[in-house]
Amino acid sequence: MPHSYRVDGLQYANWSEDIFRQMREGQVDAVHVTIAYHEDFRETVQNIEQWNRWFEMYPDLIFHGRWADDVLIARETNRTAIFFGFQNPSPMEADIGLIEILHTLGVRFMQLSYNNQSLLATGCYEDEDMGITRMGRQVIKEMNRVGLVIDMSHSAERSTLEAIEISTRPIAITHANPAFWHPALRNKSDTVLKALGQSGGMLGFSVYPHHLKDKSDCSLQSFCEMIARTAELMGPERVGLGTDLCQNQPDSVVEWMRVGRWTKEIDFGEGSASDAGFPDMPNWFRDNRDFGQIESGLRNIGFSEAEVSGVMGGNWIKFFAKSFGPSCDNANQNNVVAAQ
Amino acid sequence: MPHSYRVDGLQYANWSEDIFRQMREGQVDAVHVTIAYHEDFRETVQNIEQWNRWFEMYPDLIFHGRWADDVLIARETNRTAIFFGFQNPSPMEADIGLIEILHTLGVRFMQLSYNNQSLLATGCYEDEDMGITRMGRQVIKEMNRVGLVIDMSHSAERSTLEAIEISTRPIAITHANPAFWHPALRNKSDTVLKALGQSGGMLGFSVYPHHLKDKSDCSLQSFCEMIARTAELMGPERVGLGTDLCQNQPDSVVEWMRVGRWTKEIDFGEGSASDAGFPDMPNWFRDNRDFGQIESGLRNIGFSEAEVSGVMGGNWIKFFAKSFGPSCDNANQNNVVAAQ
Repeated sequence: MPHSYRVDGLQYANWSEDIFRQMREGQVDAVHVTIAYHEDFRETVQNIEQWNRWFEMYPDLIFHGRWADDVLIARETNRTAIFFGFQNPSPMEADIGLIEILHTLGVRFMQLSYNNQSLLATGCYEDEDMGITRMGRQVIKEMNRVGLVIDMSHSAERSTLEAIEISTRPIAITHANPAFWHPALRNKSDTVLKALGQSGGMLGFSVYPHHLKDKSDCSLQSFCEMIARTAELMGPERVGLGTDLCQNQPDSVVEWMRVGRWTKEIDFGEGSASDAGFPDMPNWFRDNRDFGQIESGLRNIGFSEAEVSGVMGGNWIKFFAKSFGPSCDNANQNNVVAAQ
Repeated sequence: MPHSYRVDGLQYANWSEDIFRQMREGQVDAVHVTIAYHEDFRETVQNIEQWNRWFEMYPDLIFHGRWADDVLIARETNRTAIFFGFQNPSPMEADIGLIEILHTLGVRFMQLSYNNQSLLATGCYEDEDMGITRMGRQVIKEMNRVGLVIDMSHSAERSTLEAIEISTRPIAITHANPAFWHPALRNKSDTVLKALGQSGGMLGFSVYPHHLKDKSDCSLQSFCEMIARTAELMGPERVGLGTDLCQNQPDSVVEWMRVGRWTKEIDFGEGSASDAGFPDMPNWFRDNRDFGQIESGLRNIGFSEAEVSGVMGGNWIKFFAKSFGPSCDNANQNNVVAAQ
């Protein structure tokens, strides 16, 4: 039996040929990779330059994914399509014109805030949540126009609900789990999950231990049962994976994610002073080679083949297909041609 | 009789809706526009942002041209395809990775030097011509790989001959005339023109008065006879137009072109202290509305219909088709898909 399409809604690994080979071993057809946490525009372009080098060096393993059909091309050519995204709006600086530029460079996801307040929205660690800002409303409109997906994974509750409401196109929470299963600040309330599902958006389930019940000791069965309950809440077509895999990263990188250049002090984010580094992954998901374990886990708790296929990648592919091109309202003939 | 395709190999106007409407009036299917003289990368991106605004504001008049087929789409949809280019390599700064980034953003031509020595090649106003530099050789290779056309319009003789030799793909001199007709420093020797023609490159004929015999008083017949002689020298498929039209620009802009930020003194370039500004255009080519005059002029001196069609745009279209995609040596399947 051919396996389902496998799409991962978020990774930030310490990329190398070994990891690209593991993606092939795990038959991962597409991955949304983070290319910026706190970088400004020029630094982000340098990160794209680095990816271009990898695409040139490993053309048999990976290529730059731009459209939903690239996931199918990846399967046909036995490679992994790499889709770019940001965890923070910092790459667009304060310049709305950079949104189209970044989309042209192949960026497909942008979080409106990362833990803290941004120019656009409130992050999940702030005490107050002011909702979407004046600039945020303009940026959502422009992101809708060009086909850059709004990602609210690290945003606060009110900001997330407003983004769902204001956006004319479905949004994503690429990597988080439901708070009903594990009440981490980063996990999402039933209210958010229902609104996300009803608006046609997508949730990607995280395997990052701080987002898991029992953290590194979380069982595969518990993870899959959580997926089943969330699928009931949101609809089985509204969920996929977003593992948040940060493979082979030194602990200095988790510090960069949390602290960037916004403070001179230390911030432990989801960790703590006594548990400051990257946590151990659960034993059933070491890295890209283990997507088959999740696929089996879903079957074992009673998901139908069609549902397994949707969660493993089919739902993301449908979401990509309706999200990455220019909006129909604004599409002139040339834009439509470019989006093919 | 339907008119020939009309492609202009270079313009740098003070863009406005009026000019875009004149392009339609003159039935100009495609224009290579200069989007940077001395700008760095970030400033160049801002110029692209400005063009994106114009594409959004005037979708019935213009769109961003990326591939040769866009010229045909322009004709079919009664619009003008706008192709981006630089007069100077300044937008790539000293970073070879920016070449692919800029190509992804739709840039299709880059001059290796503009009047002065650059990091890559010598300009036509330097006393010494050292030829292509060490970095220049690397940049030519990368431009060849991604499909960014090498333009030597403002470069010095030896540098130009070496660029033709080193480049594995045909290059262009988008806007200049033969020195045999008018011996301006910017016009090109028979040696350069022959080498350019033999290598499959293209020359675009300039209507900028400093490049014309008798300058603003140049007759249309003299201009067309010069085209005929050059076509004999290079081959009739190796020539097109590159008017260098700088419509509605204030004289401060010609100063920016010449002086940029490389000197605190004034430099008059092709002009002089007594003739520092933009010269008057010849009366047979006021602006984009007058391409039909050149077309008639070519017929009147005896060009065949096929030759007229080639000079007016067909030759550029064939050159675009072989130049703008990734090189066949390096093309992996995904690049080829992206280039369609």
